[in-house]
Amino acid sequence: MNKKTLGIGLIGAGTVGGGVIKILENKAELLFKRSGFNLEIVKAADLDTDKLISLGIDKTKATNSADEVINDKDVDVIIELVGGTGIAYEIVEKALNAGKHIVTANKALLAERGEKLFTLAEKNEVAIAFEAAVAGAIPIIKAIRDGLSADTLQCLLGIVNGTCNYILTEMISSGKSYADALKDAQSLGFAEADPTFDVEGNDSAHKLTLLSQLGFGTSPDFTKINIEGISNLSLEDVASAAKLGYKVKLLAVARPINNQLFLSVHPALLKENHPLANVMGSMNAISLFADNAQESMFYGRGAGEMPTASAVVADIVEIARSGSSDKIKSKWIPDAENTYDIAPMNDYHCRFFVRFTVSDGFGILGKIASILGEKHVSIKSVEQNEANEARVPIVILTQVAKEGNLREAVKEIEALDFNLEPAGILRIEE
Amino acid sequence: MNKKTLGIGLIGAGTVGGGVIKILENKAELLFKRSGFNLEIVKAADLDTDKLISLGIDKTKATNSADEVINDKDVDVIIELVGGTGIAYEIVEKALNAGKHIVTANKALLAERGEKLFTLAEKNEVAIAFEAAVAGAIPIIKAIRDGLSADTLQCLLGIVNGTCNYILTEMISSGKSYADALKDAQSLGFAEADPTFDVEGNDSAHKLTLLSQLGFGTSPDFTKINIEGISNLSLEDVASAAKLGYKVKLLAVARPINNQLFLSVHPALLKENHPLANVMGSMNAISLFADNAQESMFYGRGAGEMPTASAVVADIVEIARSGSSDKIKSKWIPDAENTYDIAPMNDYHCRFFVRFTVSDGFGILGKIASILGEKHVSIKSVEQNEANEARVPIVILTQVAKEGNLREAVKEIEALDFNLEPAGILRIEE
Repeated sequence: MNKKTLGIGLIGAGTVGGGVIKILENKAELLFKRSGFNLEIVKAADLDTDKLISLGIDKTKATNSADEVINDKDVDVIIELVGGTGIAYEIVEKALNAGKHIVTANKALLAERGEKLFTLAEKNEVAIAFEAAVAGAIPIIKAIRDGLSADTLQCLLGIVNGTCNYILTEMISSGKSYADALKDAQSLGFAEADPTFDVEGNDSAHKLTLLSQLGFGTSPDFTKINIEGISNLSLEDVASAAKLGYKVKLLAVARPINNQLFLSVHPALLKENHPLANVMGSMNAISLFADNAQESMFYGRGAGEMPTASAVVADIVEIARSGSSDKIKSKWIPDAENTYDIAPMNDYHCRFFVRFTVSDGFGILGKIASILGEKHVSIKSVEQNEANEARVPIVILTQVAKEGNLREAVKEIEALDFNLEPAGILRIEE
Repeated sequence: MNKKTLGIGLIGAGTVGGGVIKILENKAELLFKRSGFNLEIVKAADLDTDKLISLGIDKTKATNSADEVINDKDVDVIIELVGGTGIAYEIVEKALNAGKHIVTANKALLAERGEKLFTLAEKNEVAIAFEAAVAGAIPIIKAIRDGLSADTLQCLLGIVNGTCNYILTEMISSGKSYADALKDAQSLGFAEADPTFDVEGNDSAHKLTLLSQLGFGTSPDFTKINIEGISNLSLEDVASAAKLGYKVKLLAVARPINNQLFLSVHPALLKENHPLANVMGSMNAISLFADNAQESMFYGRGAGEMPTASAVVADIVEIARSGSSDKIKSKWIPDAENTYDIAPMNDYHCRFFVRFTVSDGFGILGKIASILGEKHVSIKSVEQNEANEARVPIVILTQVAKEGNLREAVKEIEALDFNLEPAGILRIEE
């Protein structure tokens, strides 16, 4: 058999890089059968070359210079696992200019500086493959691009950050506060020492950017995405939601309305029987609604050495199968169907969970209801907990309302003298 | 722009065919952008040509002769929506020999007579695409073939028949008997007038055959698959399972153990928190475990006009994108990684739900437990319902046991004089 070889250059030997090396080594025969190519690491770079060697890379192939990988004429595809948007950008830019395909797990890079890189890839007729950048081992990029190629996407809701989902699961299931759940997540390795990037929603927003490029054929300005994290979420609200039959999840949301696209990361209530409501712990899932395929949901591991490496190697296999760069090109570059404007959240329409905290007294609910009514916000249900007379939480579920109206009403109510604390506002997604 | 055209021949204008015509018509521009080709029906055949015309096919393109479609030199891809394994086989065989790609939703054809057709496709360097044949709009074929190309599949559990899942959901949620739930399903269009093919598990077995070809690189003999339907399932057992925290689902199961592959369709118990346990109504879902990607689940519409048509058209787009037949070939034809033997179910290992129905009396449970013990079946829990002294159901959940041993023990117990009815045996999948 005439074995053809696809030369791989690996840059960055962290956790995922180690997993990639293992798969390429352990599954060489299988990958050859499936891709038609011998998938071989011909050069690998890391600042710590000893680490590369300890991972099984031959001394002659290990280097501490990314340029050496990029300039190696036997390298056809570069796996960029450096991370971040600085050096990684330079590496990918150089590699694309050198005519190399890119496989990357770097969501920050593609979300914040992707447009130029995709344009460059198109010019050089090479691919940027990034299945591993969104929801790890869940083949959501391929599902949208290939599975839904005959559809127009109408809604995307994703649980795409395992750290947040782990913390929220602990808050829901074990009644832990945010702070305690975070500590547990850190001690178990589900959260970084500095968790800001995850818990404040930035990581989810990066993934949402990539998903909406594909799903809505648009190139959203990352800085315009509405981002609300979970660090201010109160256990009281999570518990109140649970009593009403809802689970709180941090969602990445993309909803097109006419030519406007709402892009937002926020904690939201999901009815217990929603497919995403039972996604527990560090698992990820994306729920889609498309005009023809209708509802679907994709669930799996969003992170971890081998799941992420699985997605990286699957992208390599796809590039090998695609054969000529011309074929890959048409598959990877988002081509705008519509140009959407990112819509302001004040125009968002959904049902809301609102918790007011008030002093005890007569007529308070009447005043609250009147102000909501004046702003065209209808109430679906009210729960008043009068266990403690000095501090009475009133939990209101609204009918579908315009967010701007709701926020105006809440602001007015917060200014009244019976109001004790800022209101808790959570969107209900369905 | 130089519009290239991919000529489509449609054979069979039933529900799905109508959906395909709609999508190709309504999304022509979008599909061109996504595929790089003008996807155009150049010839369509149905015995009822008036139906074709009423669906919007131009008179000059409508025919009642499949041969006319196959022999049209402008046809590049044939969509076979005739169904069945007779005429459809002849059509596909002729089309492959004429060098046409095939897109089909015909699971029976590919499961029962697929091997010859795939071989013929390979010889003629054309594709057989069949995403629509398994779980409708869920892109499970692409997920296994592309998303998990770096993985070895270790377990597949699928809810792939909407009729059965609808009936079981009604039994679980509304406490209806099988017969009543079936009647409801029929009146709502979720079950055929003659539901045998669905409720006895044959349809699920066809889909299992296709999934295991891809997932395990094998060509299982369809007739060797273990098939147990739901028509003998008692509401009593479904309700007992629910009390113990389990839901009963009809599952298509593929589990490789060493060089043996268990392929079975059977009703099974799933713990309430299993991702498949909450797949309700006519929805489909497939749960996978792979060595690198680990657990994943794919959920969506398994049938219906537009969801199924969405999968058909997505396959057309993929063929268009692939460009040359050479590229498609390597993607569609299952290439054996291992040759598995289909294992006999007596060698299956799992936990079991067993319901004995006995007369009241002392020492009965002791006798049952002793016989199970002799056959190396350990008991995890026992529930005895003594509400009715004349007929006492004893529900036993076992530890993991070998199926052959369990069945021997049950046979012995059924022969004892206190036993009133054949035992109910259900596997527990996890």
